[in-house]
Amino acid sequence: MVINPISPTVDFDQDGVQHGFLKLPYSHDQSAWGSIMIPITVVKNGTGPTAVLTGANHGDEYEGPIALYDLAAKIDPVDVSGRIIIVPAFNYPAFLSGTRTSPIDGGNLNRIFPGRPDGTVTQKIADFFQYQILSRADYVLDIHSGGRTLEFIPFAACHVLPDKRQEKRCVEAMRAFNAPYSLMLLEIDSVGMYDSAAEELGRVFVSTELGGGGSASATTIKIAKKGIENFLKHAGILAGDPLIEPTVNLDMPDGRCYVSCETPGLIEYTVELGEEVEEGQVVAVVHEVTRTGRPPALYRAGISGIFTGRHYPGMINMGDIVAVIAVPV
Amino acid sequence: MVINPISPTVDFDQDGVQHGFLKLPYSHDQSAWGSIMIPITVVKNGTGPTAVLTGANHGDEYEGPIALYDLAAKIDPVDVSGRIIIVPAFNYPAFLSGTRTSPIDGGNLNRIFPGRPDGTVTQKIADFFQYQILSRADYVLDIHSGGRTLEFIPFAACHVLPDKRQEKRCVEAMRAFNAPYSLMLLEIDSVGMYDSAAEELGRVFVSTELGGGGSASATTIKIAKKGIENFLKHAGILAGDPLIEPTVNLDMPDGRCYVSCETPGLIEYTVELGEEVEEGQVVAVVHEVTRTGRPPALYRAGISGIFTGRHYPGMINMGDIVAVIAVPV
Amino acid sequence: MVINPISPTVDFDQDGVQHGFLKLPYSHDQSAWGSIMIPITVVKNGTGPTAVLTGANHGDEYEGPIALYDLAAKIDPVDVSGRIIIVPAFNYPAFLSGTRTSPIDGGNLNRIFPGRPDGTVTQKIADFFQYQILSRADYVLDIHSGGRTLEFIPFAACHVLPDKRQEKRCVEAMRAFNAPYSLMLLEIDSVGMYDSAAEELGRVFVSTELGGGGSASATTIKIAKKGIENFLKHAGILAGDPLIEPTVNLDMPDGRCYVSCETPGLIEYTVELGEEVEEGQVVAVVHEVTRTGRPPALYRAGISGIFTGRHYPGMINMGDIVAVIAVPV
Amino acid sequence: MVINPISPTVDFDQDGVQHGFLKLPYSHDQSAWGSIMIPITVVKNGTGPTAVLTGANHGDEYEGPIALYDLAAKIDPVDVSGRIIIVPAFNYPAFLSGTRTSPIDGGNLNRIFPGRPDGTVTQKIADFFQYQILSRADYVLDIHSGGRTLEFIPFAACHVLPDKRQEKRCVEAMRAFNAPYSLMLLEIDSVGMYDSAAEELGRVFVSTELGGGGSASATTIKIAKKGIENFLKHAGILAGDPLIEPTVNLDMPDGRCYVSCETPGLIEYTVELGEEVEEGQVVAVVHEVTRTGRPPALYRAGISGIFTGRHYPGMINMGDIVAVIAVPV
Amino acid sequence: MVINPISPTVDFDQDGVQHGFLKLPYSHDQSAWGSIMIPITVVKNGTGPTAVLTGANHGDEYEGPIALYDLAAKIDPVDVSGRIIIVPAFNYPAFLSGTRTSPIDGGNLNRIFPGRPDGTVTQKIADFFQYQILSRADYVLDIHSGGRTLEFIPFAACHVLPDKRQEKRCVEAMRAFNAPYSLMLLEIDSVGMYDSAAEELGRVFVSTELGGGGSASATTIKIAKKGIENFLKHAGILAGDPLIEPTVNLDMPDGRCYVSCETPGLIEYTVELGEEVEEGQVVAVVHEVTRTGRPPALYRAGISGIFTGRHYPGMINMGDIVAVIAVPV
Amino acid sequence: MVINPISPTVDFDQDGVQHGFLKLPYSHDQSAWGSIMIPITVVKNGTGPTAVLTGANHGDEYEGPIALYDLAAKIDPVDVSGRIIIVPAFNYPAFLSGTRTSPIDGGNLNRIFPGRPDGTVTQKIADFFQYQILSRADYVLDIHSGGRTLEFIPFAACHVLPDKRQEKRCVEAMRAFNAPYSLMLLEIDSVGMYDSAAEELGRVFVSTELGGGGSASATTIKIAKKGIENFLKHAGILAGDPLIEPTVNLDMPDGRCYVSCETPGLIEYTVELGEEVEEGQVVAVVHEVTRTGRPPALYRAGISGIFTGRHYPGMINMGDIVAVIAVPV
Repeated sequence: MVINPISPTVDFDQDGVQHGFLKLPYSHDQSAWGSIMIPITVVKNGTGPTAVLTGANHGDEYEGPIALYDLAAKIDPVDVSGRIIIVPAFNYPAFLSGTRTSPIDGGNLNRIFPGRPDGTVTQKIADFFQYQILSRADYVLDIHSGGRTLEFIPFAACHVLPDKRQEKRCVEAMRAFNAPYSLMLLEIDSVGMYDSAAEELGRVFVSTELGGGGSASATTIKIAKKGIENFLKHAGILAGDPLIEPTVNLDMPDGRCYVSCETPGLIEYTVELGEEVEEGQVVAVVHEVTRTGRPPALYRAGISGIFTGRHYPGMINMGDIVAVIAVPV
Repeated sequence: MVINPISPTVDFDQDGVQHGFLKLPYSHDQSAWGSIMIPITVVKNGTGPTAVLTGANHGDEYEGPIALYDLAAKIDPVDVSGRIIIVPAFNYPAFLSGTRTSPIDGGNLNRIFPGRPDGTVTQKIADFFQYQILSRADYVLDIHSGGRTLEFIPFAACHVLPDKRQEKRCVEAMRAFNAPYSLMLLEIDSVGMYDSAAEELGRVFVSTELGGGGSASATTIKIAKKGIENFLKHAGILAGDPLIEPTVNLDMPDGRCYVSCETPGLIEYTVELGEEVEEGQVVAVVHEVTRTGRPPALYRAGISGIFTGRHYPGMINMGDIVAVIAVPV
Repeated sequence: MVINPISPTVDFDQDGVQHGFLKLPYSHDQSAWGSIMIPITVVKNGTGPTAVLTGANHGDEYEGPIALYDLAAKIDPVDVSGRIIIVPAFNYPAFLSGTRTSPIDGGNLNRIFPGRPDGTVTQKIADFFQYQILSRADYVLDIHSGGRTLEFIPFAACHVLPDKRQEKRCVEAMRAFNAPYSLMLLEIDSVGMYDSAAEELGRVFVSTELGGGGSASATTIKIAKKGIENFLKHAGILAGDPLIEPTVNLDMPDGRCYVSCETPGLIEYTVELGEEVEEGQVVAVVHEVTRTGRPPALYRAGISGIFTGRHYPGMINMGDIVAVIAVPV
Repeated sequence: MVINPISPTVDFDQDGVQHGFLKLPYSHDQSAWGSIMIPITVVKNGTGPTAVLTGANHGDEYEGPIALYDLAAKIDPVDVSGRIIIVPAFNYPAFLSGTRTSPIDGGNLNRIFPGRPDGTVTQKIADFFQYQILSRADYVLDIHSGGRTLEFIPFAACHVLPDKRQEKRCVEAMRAFNAPYSLMLLEIDSVGMYDSAAEELGRVFVSTELGGGGSASATTIKIAKKGIENFLKHAGILAGDPLIEPTVNLDMPDGRCYVSCETPGLIEYTVELGEEVEEGQVVAVVHEVTRTGRPPALYRAGISGIFTGRHYPGMINMGDIVAVIAVPV
Repeated sequence: MVINPISPTVDFDQDGVQHGFLKLPYSHDQSAWGSIMIPITVVKNGTGPTAVLTGANHGDEYEGPIALYDLAAKIDPVDVSGRIIIVPAFNYPAFLSGTRTSPIDGGNLNRIFPGRPDGTVTQKIADFFQYQILSRADYVLDIHSGGRTLEFIPFAACHVLPDKRQEKRCVEAMRAFNAPYSLMLLEIDSVGMYDSAAEELGRVFVSTELGGGGSASATTIKIAKKGIENFLKHAGILAGDPLIEPTVNLDMPDGRCYVSCETPGLIEYTVELGEEVEEGQVVAVVHEVTRTGRPPALYRAGISGIFTGRHYPGMINMGDIVAVIAVPV
Repeated sequence: MVINPISPTVDFDQDGVQHGFLKLPYSHDQSAWGSIMIPITVVKNGTGPTAVLTGANHGDEYEGPIALYDLAAKIDPVDVSGRIIIVPAFNYPAFLSGTRTSPIDGGNLNRIFPGRPDGTVTQKIADFFQYQILSRADYVLDIHSGGRTLEFIPFAACHVLPDKRQEKRCVEAMRAFNAPYSLMLLEIDSVGMYDSAAEELGRVFVSTELGGGGSASATTIKIAKKGIENFLKHAGILAGDPLIEPTVNLDMPDGRCYVSCETPGLIEYTVELGEEVEEGQVVAVVHEVTRTGRPPALYRAGISGIFTGRHYPGMINMGDIVAVIAVPV
């Protein structure tokens, strides 16, 4: 049996706050005996549930890392009942390079679970979380945003699950996170996701999309910070009640929610994220760039609802997502 | 004397609308006898002033190209008195690669004027505009945004000029553009700018910054479209009066307007663009990413005013701009 | 069980002509929710056999894509009895980059069958053809050329097969294709080939090599077009008889047919493709390039026959093929 | 005054055959005190004219280097009256990388004359030939082909010159070279060419285009070898009369000889190089590749004549040359 | 069953000396039908044991290749009793690029055993040695150095093995090699190593680390040459007794032997390799480079012993090894 | 007149110690309004001479930066009479990338003086030192090593100068530095060197080569630290007398001191740096690597003397330096 070579420099069972690393040996041309040092903070105080908080599952999504580096620096074990495991930059090599996937092996951490202990760097990270971290967790929060190529209205999400009691606990945790929007997802293709790995182990799991474009704003950072604090209060790890403000509940009934691109070019959006759109309404046009004087291609909403997500860069390619539309419930 | 090898496929003196190219011979490894084909539209109707409209002077700024490809496709010569020269993607190789500078020669088109007819690709473009385009212009509008690494509140700008009559005409044109913000610039280092080239020739010149992040929104695109139409009405090339809405007039008195970074890491903004800030107020903090548990570095406003510009990507390096603050007048 | 995520936008069972895509979801740094859109045309009219026609199995081979984009644009369902599935650019990412293998995963599509539904992009394409396309096929034609690094005399080919009735049907189809040369292949290493995948399913399979060098000429394009029309007539999908002209039948008895390089340098061929060579005759010499004044290395034919294939680029490396010689039968 | 740092390891004034180098100091990251060693052969016997023979002025053109490495290895000074300076790989770094231009500085050696002694690597080579090699020459032959991106019928060429006596001497040398085609060129843009540098110094200068595609065939290599021998006989450096076979004399009267591309895609030629074409005849079509079912763009001859040159790779871009047509005289 | 496609051009059972290749077919974009040609020498004389000698298992380690190319050029079969198989550049693609791992597939040959016959290039090499080379071996010597990123005092090494008789034979062979230092290794993670593959087959196996930094000195080359000759004499393949000089026997009891880096920057060593250090003694400091005026981070020995290995480049990253300390026994 | 845009954040005329930056604005694709921040320390106390100390003129040379970051962190203004300007990483972008030249513009800082204020990044650094730093200097010390591709015995050096009084002052300063070797240089090509820039301004200038290979050892770091302290004592800026140990005085009379490579391959040195060699003695051999069994090429000393410098990497190319030999005086 192959042992995962990642060794933590923190003791998960020790009370107090520890700042350390998940040390992942990585022999390569620039360092024959090198290691990747993934920062981790463990805060523990007595008994109680364990929450695992992660950011930068995709390396170009910033609300999670910002809120979690901040939390790790400020958290006082006195305020904690139970344990918080904070990994602000889950796919750390991707985070350092500011890219969705790992520059080392191209690994998309959220499509690679359960990983392999003798696999690539990204597979080793997945395997370690599958067998060493999720096994210690009761509550799991993975903070995503749109990254450099997508932008979303800020929402928390959970999944339709076969175990309706688990689903209910996840929905309650999503509501406790209390983002401006809350989305119920029926994933078509959940193979390899961290979400599925956590859910299959029976954990209370919440995910988010809080913005995008490879940046973070004061507003979306505040949503992340409030959501984390609410989530920990909901889990009973921090004292007090979550601060609850109005949220819009959304659903994505079927494939009409997605508009995709069949004409590469320069994309001009005609509506803003968060606006209501009618089925058939033009949400974007795409201009051919090799010459002037051509009429642009029109892209229309396939369903009425809220303009929830969009392509971010100025140029768009064949097959890219133009628009995501969700339906208020 | 060296002749600029760029040949236009349009006739600048012909009435009607022509869609063509500035054809720039470029011999390289992928095409021994290749050319760069920069799209151009010329619309002319009788006599009257000439306006030159450009986008993508930097290749990752999108409001200009979107509004100008759109204008080129829709403009009817019947509505025109005089001439409009539209070049939606000024530094076309940079625009195609979605980068600020040209992937061919690294050229920053806005620092390379007056260019050289026998220079690099970017220098040839500059030389052609210096001697063939600006010479035909009365009104010049160059639409910028922040690009992939900066983000701004949407403003039109003009410069303090030695010729106060010319300055006044530029200010009037900037006001006609009527962006939400209007900024009077005293450039410290204007060497090589297209702006300076146009102004030194006595043209009425207006520039803008309309957003950033390497994307464009429905809102900023509308600002660009309205501004262009207003600008052409102000020049008398389109009929009617500019549509004028309230604008905030801004000034940048001195170096205190700029906050720059001396600690690389993950940047967390604490205020939104457009908010008022007080001198000494923290506008952003930077988290070290190699380890958790460290207090972040604080960045404070050097002057009271409006938070006008920021670094866009989630990570920031030594020497990058953290914040630009402008003062309402 | 893992489902192949490729979804066709065409209905294989609908009469008439449909131009659409095989849509392959591909999440990467440049597009988090992107897709690869492989063009496909399905032409169907009533009942009858199904032919699958592919080009650009290797991305730098052009006679196939040219003839098939042309066919897809011109074909009238009225002329068809049965069904034609046309995929002009089989390994579409490789085709777009003009390289033999995929720039995404380095995949050589013709060595990767039967693929994997949860594998790399190239593995997913192979899996989809294995289970969704070949299952619908009666006749399969895969048009190859030499690509950027090899050049061949134009030939159609089929394989020695264990099932002699199937082999006979393949030979008849190869003869119907009627290239200037017809070659009977005993593949040493057929693992992972599309050829083998089709043959093992009992399909009538024909392959070709029609030229090379990463280009196509009017002559080789005509061979491809005539061959495709002949192949479809032979299958009974188009009406009429194949147009048959003289062909030279060739065989490759053993390893003496291959001459390979053991001296890197500049290669000088002394015979033209299609010429007869005698065993022991010098077919090429290789000049060392680091200095002048050295005698070149000589490469001799290992068998008498027709000079059938050669290295294309001006420089040659250790281990590259110098010459392929086939024996007329 | 700056001295060119290139030092030859051969003595240009010594009788006999010497194989050596032009040693060009080049300090870079892979070798702090490195040099580029350009192979050179000098053959001298008594008094008489000097011929300078070069290949690989562009690094992906192979008939010249093949014929000249071969000549350098075989030449016997006893057969020579005067001097031959042989540089088979003129832009040696480009030749080693198989690219038109230098991988070191992007330099196109044939557009950079007279170079600079303190410039880039390519500029230093040009300066050395301008002041150290051409100054020693009477006859200059520079053997080109189409390279990886162009293909030509095999022709020798010379230029219309202001000095008609010099022009006549060049034409006689071109005819002595005796390629299958002979072309009289009126260059529009001869700035920076080696051709112009030699002609301005009053040398007898002949250039060629002998094929292309980044390869060489037995046929085109024979044309080069015969042409070089003829050229040296014509100069009186080798004994005997040139071997003269029929040639087709061609002219290129004006811009109608060039057809250029305005639709990127997959190019399908409908005529072969060397065929006669009529004005208005379709010589090629370009297929859009992002989808099937579209009619291709048609490209027509602008003048009646011989199809003389074409784009070589299977894919073509905006602004690339589609066809060159020359007119028999 | 899949057959390894590597074919040797030498006959392992033929007496005399043969210089040839392990020919590994490798189809790629630069050569559709190319091969990697790994140089190999087989020297055989009558019956007797077989020694397999390899260098460049990692491509940036040079004492092995130097000593083995030298041996292959000089060895006289008359002096041999048995057989020597010499592969100077084991991971040949890595060796050609001067990198630890293969530029083709990133493969670390010493972590990939037993390989796969249908795997990547590096996996194919491993599989061939596993089943074709080690099966023929009695004595196996694999000569390593530190490579570009590590530097060691020169030592031979063998492993603690479960079969104590085999271990004893390995220790005797290590002592016969007689490097200045001899190290007994208890590998923590020996999965995929060539060492383990040889040992599990019961071979007498010796490894070394003879220097590093991506270079070799006259001194370390002499150690390699003497060690190889001694090893072959010890095996009885060459006549005579090994030349034995004093060696220092070393042990590495536990993890305290390793000091690793948690502060990226510029590394300043305070002791030389081979010096004795005391537990707690500063062996290196690391300077932050983004600013001056900061105190450096201190790195201390975790155990008393000999300073055995260090990081080589001037800059060091998080997780790199700072120091290896071994304990004299 | 163009102003150099570099702005120092330190005041050169202020007493005490200041740690700051030379801030060089650099607009590029990763940061539109970015700057390069070159660390600098200024230490001043009263009146007295000014010494300028630099390291990493080439970015892969480490003794200088190590000793100077260390000095900057420890220096106490109380110990200073006059002023010390410390720039540990002169070509800072090259230093950060660990390469000889700048990754931004390929600039070799030591061949680019006097630079240009409106040039590339490296040219701007040179211009700033030419006009802002050297103008303030009395004593200038620039600490070099061999870098990644060369290795030297540790020496200090100065040049033969036209002004013999200045030369004498430089020689005295070199002797004060007191490296194990002291070398008197007659540079052939000193164009563009920092050395020449300083000397032409009449400064007392000393340079060094202290090791190489892209690393630094405890021994060579000690030589640098002692040399700097001695140099500052000699200048009267630090109190006390230089610590003087024996040094070997060397001379390099002519081109026979250099042995250069004409056979690419694997280099085997037969003597160690610092050993005495006789004219004609083999100092290295080069093995061809494409095959085994070939005799290596031999390289011999052209003059008797001390083996002073060598190529560092294991592989060597055409034109690289094999050996530098200096003659004791």
